[in-house]
Amino acid sequence: MSAFDPPAPIVRRLVAAALAEDLGLLGDITTEACVDPDRTATAAFVTRVAGTVAGTALATETFRRFGPAVRVEWSVADGDDVAAGAELGRVHGPLRAILTGERTALNFLSHCSGIATLTRAYVRAVGGGARVLDTRKTTPGLRAIEKAAVRAGGGHNHRESLSDAVLVKDNHLSALGPAAAVARARALWPGRMVEVECETLDQVAEAVAAGADRVMVDNMDPDGVRAAVALVAGRAEVEVSGGVTLATVADYAATGADFVSVGALTHSAPILDIGLDIVDEG
Amino acid sequence: MSAFDPPAPIVRRLVAAALAEDLGLLGDITTEACVDPDRTATAAFVTRVAGTVAGTALATETFRRFGPAVRVEWSVADGDDVAAGAELGRVHGPLRAILTGERTALNFLSHCSGIATLTRAYVRAVGGGARVLDTRKTTPGLRAIEKAAVRAGGGHNHRESLSDAVLVKDNHLSALGPAAAVARARALWPGRMVEVECETLDQVAEAVAAGADRVMVDNMDPDGVRAAVALVAGRAEVEVSGGVTLATVADYAATGADFVSVGALTHSAPILDIGLDIVDEG
Amino acid sequence: MSAFDPPAPIVRRLVAAALAEDLGLLGDITTEACVDPDRTATAAFVTRVAGTVAGTALATETFRRFGPAVRVEWSVADGDDVAAGAELGRVHGPLRAILTGERTALNFLSHCSGIATLTRAYVRAVGGGARVLDTRKTTPGLRAIEKAAVRAGGGHNHRESLSDAVLVKDNHLSALGPAAAVARARALWPGRMVEVECETLDQVAEAVAAGADRVMVDNMDPDGVRAAVALVAGRAEVEVSGGVTLATVADYAATGADFVSVGALTHSAPILDIGLDIVDEG
Amino acid sequence: MSAFDPPAPIVRRLVAAALAEDLGLLGDITTEACVDPDRTATAAFVTRVAGTVAGTALATETFRRFGPAVRVEWSVADGDDVAAGAELGRVHGPLRAILTGERTALNFLSHCSGIATLTRAYVRAVGGGARVLDTRKTTPGLRAIEKAAVRAGGGHNHRESLSDAVLVKDNHLSALGPAAAVARARALWPGRMVEVECETLDQVAEAVAAGADRVMVDNMDPDGVRAAVALVAGRAEVEVSGGVTLATVADYAATGADFVSVGALTHSAPILDIGLDIVDEG
Amino acid sequence: MSAFDPPAPIVRRLVAAALAEDLGLLGDITTEACVDPDRTATAAFVTRVAGTVAGTALATETFRRFGPAVRVEWSVADGDDVAAGAELGRVHGPLRAILTGERTALNFLSHCSGIATLTRAYVRAVGGGARVLDTRKTTPGLRAIEKAAVRAGGGHNHRESLSDAVLVKDNHLSALGPAAAVARARALWPGRMVEVECETLDQVAEAVAAGADRVMVDNMDPDGVRAAVALVAGRAEVEVSGGVTLATVADYAATGADFVSVGALTHSAPILDIGLDIVDEG
Amino acid sequence: MSAFDPPAPIVRRLVAAALAEDLGLLGDITTEACVDPDRTATAAFVTRVAGTVAGTALATETFRRFGPAVRVEWSVADGDDVAAGAELGRVHGPLRAILTGERTALNFLSHCSGIATLTRAYVRAVGGGARVLDTRKTTPGLRAIEKAAVRAGGGHNHRESLSDAVLVKDNHLSALGPAAAVARARALWPGRMVEVECETLDQVAEAVAAGADRVMVDNMDPDGVRAAVALVAGRAEVEVSGGVTLATVADYAATGADFVSVGALTHSAPILDIGLDIVDEG
Repeated sequence: MSAFDPPAPIVRRLVAAALAEDLGLLGDITTEACVDPDRTATAAFVTRVAGTVAGTALATETFRRFGPAVRVEWSVADGDDVAAGAELGRVHGPLRAILTGERTALNFLSHCSGIATLTRAYVRAVGGGARVLDTRKTTPGLRAIEKAAVRAGGGHNHRESLSDAVLVKDNHLSALGPAAAVARARALWPGRMVEVECETLDQVAEAVAAGADRVMVDNMDPDGVRAAVALVAGRAEVEVSGGVTLATVADYAATGADFVSVGALTHSAPILDIGLDIVDEG
Repeated sequence: MSAFDPPAPIVRRLVAAALAEDLGLLGDITTEACVDPDRTATAAFVTRVAGTVAGTALATETFRRFGPAVRVEWSVADGDDVAAGAELGRVHGPLRAILTGERTALNFLSHCSGIATLTRAYVRAVGGGARVLDTRKTTPGLRAIEKAAVRAGGGHNHRESLSDAVLVKDNHLSALGPAAAVARARALWPGRMVEVECETLDQVAEAVAAGADRVMVDNMDPDGVRAAVALVAGRAEVEVSGGVTLATVADYAATGADFVSVGALTHSAPILDIGLDIVDEG
Repeated sequence: MSAFDPPAPIVRRLVAAALAEDLGLLGDITTEACVDPDRTATAAFVTRVAGTVAGTALATETFRRFGPAVRVEWSVADGDDVAAGAELGRVHGPLRAILTGERTALNFLSHCSGIATLTRAYVRAVGGGARVLDTRKTTPGLRAIEKAAVRAGGGHNHRESLSDAVLVKDNHLSALGPAAAVARARALWPGRMVEVECETLDQVAEAVAAGADRVMVDNMDPDGVRAAVALVAGRAEVEVSGGVTLATVADYAATGADFVSVGALTHSAPILDIGLDIVDEG
Repeated sequence: MSAFDPPAPIVRRLVAAALAEDLGLLGDITTEACVDPDRTATAAFVTRVAGTVAGTALATETFRRFGPAVRVEWSVADGDDVAAGAELGRVHGPLRAILTGERTALNFLSHCSGIATLTRAYVRAVGGGARVLDTRKTTPGLRAIEKAAVRAGGGHNHRESLSDAVLVKDNHLSALGPAAAVARARALWPGRMVEVECETLDQVAEAVAAGADRVMVDNMDPDGVRAAVALVAGRAEVEVSGGVTLATVADYAATGADFVSVGALTHSAPILDIGLDIVDEG
Repeated sequence: MSAFDPPAPIVRRLVAAALAEDLGLLGDITTEACVDPDRTATAAFVTRVAGTVAGTALATETFRRFGPAVRVEWSVADGDDVAAGAELGRVHGPLRAILTGERTALNFLSHCSGIATLTRAYVRAVGGGARVLDTRKTTPGLRAIEKAAVRAGGGHNHRESLSDAVLVKDNHLSALGPAAAVARARALWPGRMVEVECETLDQVAEAVAAGADRVMVDNMDPDGVRAAVALVAGRAEVEVSGGVTLATVADYAATGADFVSVGALTHSAPILDIGLDIVDEG
Repeated sequence: MSAFDPPAPIVRRLVAAALAEDLGLLGDITTEACVDPDRTATAAFVTRVAGTVAGTALATETFRRFGPAVRVEWSVADGDDVAAGAELGRVHGPLRAILTGERTALNFLSHCSGIATLTRAYVRAVGGGARVLDTRKTTPGLRAIEKAAVRAGGGHNHRESLSDAVLVKDNHLSALGPAAAVARARALWPGRMVEVECETLDQVAEAVAAGADRVMVDNMDPDGVRAAVALVAGRAEVEVSGGVTLATVADYAATGADFVSVGALTHSAPILDIGLDIVDEG
């Protein structure tokens, strides 16, 4: 178990579903037609471009399901930066298993590494100070592995789900003001962070006065955020959200905010291009 | 059932899993703390940028699971192009249900619409002639809805899984030449398309002579593809694969190839940014 | 949706599994042998002893699965105190469905109401001031509905799972002191409560100095807790844990601690005895 | 496989679900933050109070899922009586796995052992003669492991589900008398025990005359049961049900009845308090 | 709920799995390409040969999953004998749904009706006296619906699974004689039928003396069975098993045995040929 | 992985479900009552009649789930013809596991071998030339293993599901003629075989002119098929369907048709009778 692994039961469930999806009812008919069951091979996971690795546990589990004759060994770990052309690890075993599992293993590995790579880019752009957070804007069903990939990239995880923190948005309020909202949340759900989304400085002031643990300043420019940070004056954490890009994140981070949350980490990261090259046959 | 809907059993299964993932063990604790169960509202799905819609069946199913008091109506259909700021449809019902289901519905809708939008961009760039295909480089577990989104964008689906077509790649061959591979595939699996991946014109010639239904010319430049098309001379379909981008796809399409397959459609499409705006409360 | 309902996807999943468990492969062979399919009836959920109600959503869902001819109506809601002999609600429909679903509905309702009733007893014994918390000592697979029952009884939920809060226990430390543990937890997992289990006042002092959000004073007597509360002096929350009973909880609550956590709420609550009495046939 | 093990497919399914429930989407964040992945330890399952053991297969399976580096060895078996402070067995392996699996393993073990302990108390109180039976009043979804725990405690299992025996209750009759009910049940379901619930001696007489295999005398006092036993005169088995407690069970057993069924065994048994103590680290 | 319906949770689960299996990842591509979504139709289930109907609940559930626009109505019920060319019922709704669901509905209906038809043939051949039983030789995963089909055909169900009755076979004995086996089974599992498989009259005598509820005379000829029945003399039930065919079953039934069990009912019944004919379009 | 194995994820899922079905909630109560846990044995799979083997992977997986103490070794492979009384393989391990898993393993093995045996009979009757195809008339939920058994018998697989090939039937047409149907299918679903069902020679001519890959001549006599083959003249494949029996298949194959599809292979094959005989104990 690495610190960046998703929970093992989820890894098992997702890999089983992905393999079933790719095998269909008949299995890998190309491999069965063309590849002798006795052939063995060694193949290397190789990056086509530079990036940050994540998802190795998913690739390992993919090949593990083909039985003990297939062995996977990694020369890097989740969270490592790798150059283009780097060898990440190797799989050795029956060629049939390697070819049949290849796409599923790569789909997981390149998806997770893509998220880690984009996260790392944001973390680097920030350069310390603020921390980079993900959001609940994840690919449906894959939240656990995407949030693990964010951690591998050096980001941190915001809420896991609707049930582990309170995040009061505009639509939750209407009749209820932020003070009442925070009070009710605290009364019902002790031990959970209470965060309030704010679009104006007045709202920030009100949320902090209400005792929020964190204010989310939404869609403000860096000057606005700086003013919010000043207003909060350490009484709560400040999270910047909305419209942050790689081009602007450094400016936002320089405001003194504690967190910058970026939905794109999980909803719009391109994959990291990784291939599986046969390096030896026999 | 629209022509662009994924199979209903898959829609149901994915939505159930996504809602369970987002609700955790305690449910939407913010909404329960802050929103009166008697409040109702109407909210509109609104695009923040222009694009092509897909995934409405998933958003509908998300809200359907909150009971008959929640109604979803669409003013667009999967496959429609929409401008920035366009209203796609509305959901009406208890405010609690709208707020609790919002993120799951949007995660599906914006993911699928992102794929449809990118597909449409490729289809437009091609401008007729060649057809745009997806690949098996899909997000694990989501292949059915991603392939439906490709169709909504005007693309077509390549293999569903390893079991519905034969695609002979370099690694399948070694001892076996393409002629033997095609013959064995035909003998074992009648009624399936047999495609052979080729990296040289010699391989193309050999694959066509072997009777392949289609050749995949991999990582050739447009001139190479044009030569392959000439060589094939209508005896098989020609599919261009590898390294095709929005910038180069028109050049590839102009070669006379029948298909251009683009992994990025499903592995690297950014979402289409869509929000759910409360338009009426009471 | 009541504030005390478990998440709907979990309700659906647990009820489906429980009915399948009770029906076996042949179904309700007694009812099929003895009861005419045309008979209808009305039956009332009636308590045999006084208590607090929880789990009505599970009983409703049980009968909902027998089709629209079966209707359930409640005259009480989760969280209500009821006297012995009180009628909680009624189910009307085909007698076969009522008899076949009876045991599953009652098993859920009486299990959840038992937890709510015991929780209410603790809450009453405390009499305000400290809040009563549950633990992760729940029946495997039933945590969501048991934590909902604790809420119905007036208690509050501690951690949902291992992933939504940090609780540093003795076994986590050894080489690492509490200060380092809290720092590492904060660095890795912003936005989560960090709690430290303490068995001595020295540990309490150390944990508070380390910046813990809460200290769990474990297996201390009330005087020890009082000393801990004085020592903490409002810099953190104080949770009493271990060996708290209905007889001692008031003494612990009087110490000024913020929370008393009681594993017995979910691991040792006897059911609330509830029956389903036919009140009308025809 | 011990005679008291639940079926292995159910053990696997329940443990997988319980671990997934406890790990959430992020996993054991405390352990990941605080515990070095290289540390190993040995921990002992130790009872805090005396009782009867059950559920060891579930605890074994819990740790088995953390991989072959974790080994569990038991010094007792299901069904053994143990003193307070007794060591039941040990788990050895990575400290992370031990701490992460601890609560799930203990929740199963202490729940099952609680049922076995209460069952053993009833069996001892009876002192031979009558046999102690469980009921269908089990925790939803856990019937198989609860019935195994009853067996470990020396009790016996009544019906597995609605489909393996006929039990005619008052509500099944109305138009139909017991004679007709028994006849129809025998005709439709040969090979299943047919039992009839009786609240009066007249009903007992009628049920026996109808050829029931067993009569359930419900809510009678011991004298009533004794009269029923005399009336039955060996022509059927007699089962006492309803309102039997540890205080009264000996009186009921002394009536000559064959069985005493006790819902409390599974619906109201407190857990047996068991801990997992680190005994060695390295 | 008819008396011949399998348990509803199993019907739902099997139909959902079967539809998912048949729809694949892309759905019914023929219907989507060729059939206008607005077309509606009425189609009739029609037998091609005479037989006995079973499985209507599965066909109904198949079409129910296409939404409320599809309605199924039956003019026969499970258990009815029908002539060749008989109309069993009709489905009305969108033509797309009818064509897409057709094969799944028919696969269930014709499989179950095939079992009911073969069962009915055995029941008729017996002509009263002995009852016809199924076995555990069922199609894996489909036992519940196959046993329901046997009931529809007029047969009865033997054991549901390994857990609801004791059936001692030769391989269970060796060291243990039948008397000890029966005694141990009775001691451990009260309330379950105890049956002993016998291949000689000596074994029959021993089993009856041991108090078995039923003896299974295995692979004896009718005279052997008759001798066994005489030997048993009403002290136990007698079941004939092994090698019974439609040609021989009457002879076996005439021996005075109580039951004839026939594995072929579920493991070798050909389907009943049923089609779905469009009778009206528009 | 043999060429005749079904996909491993499906093997695992089906075996797990079948074992759970057969074990019920209590497990194998006969074996637990009668068989000492320390006994081991060797048992042989033995055919009672001659046939063709299929499904060994399912039997292996069945026993694999009882732990590493159980070993299965095969002396034949899927696709082998075997005589009556042939030993197919052996299982060695705890006698309890052998007896408990026996029925599930045999149910799979004899079901699949029955399909392979019937397929082999058709393939032999054809004697070369035409190839024998299965259909979608499979047992619900078991399509993958039944199609693997057809391959083991020497047949070939038709469509996997509704989503991997286009098969235009009469009911798809009405307004649309075959030419339009083929064109629309080709436009929407490139790379899939397009087949058209034809009941007259005129329809055959029309389908071939429309460019169908294959025509299915349905319910024609051999002379009609011969005429169709002549008419098609190699421009498409010809598949004979409907009413083909072992008695007539040679005549149909002699027509020059490419394929004969036979629903009975999967919907009406009797099992191949296989037993598991204890050959050694100790």
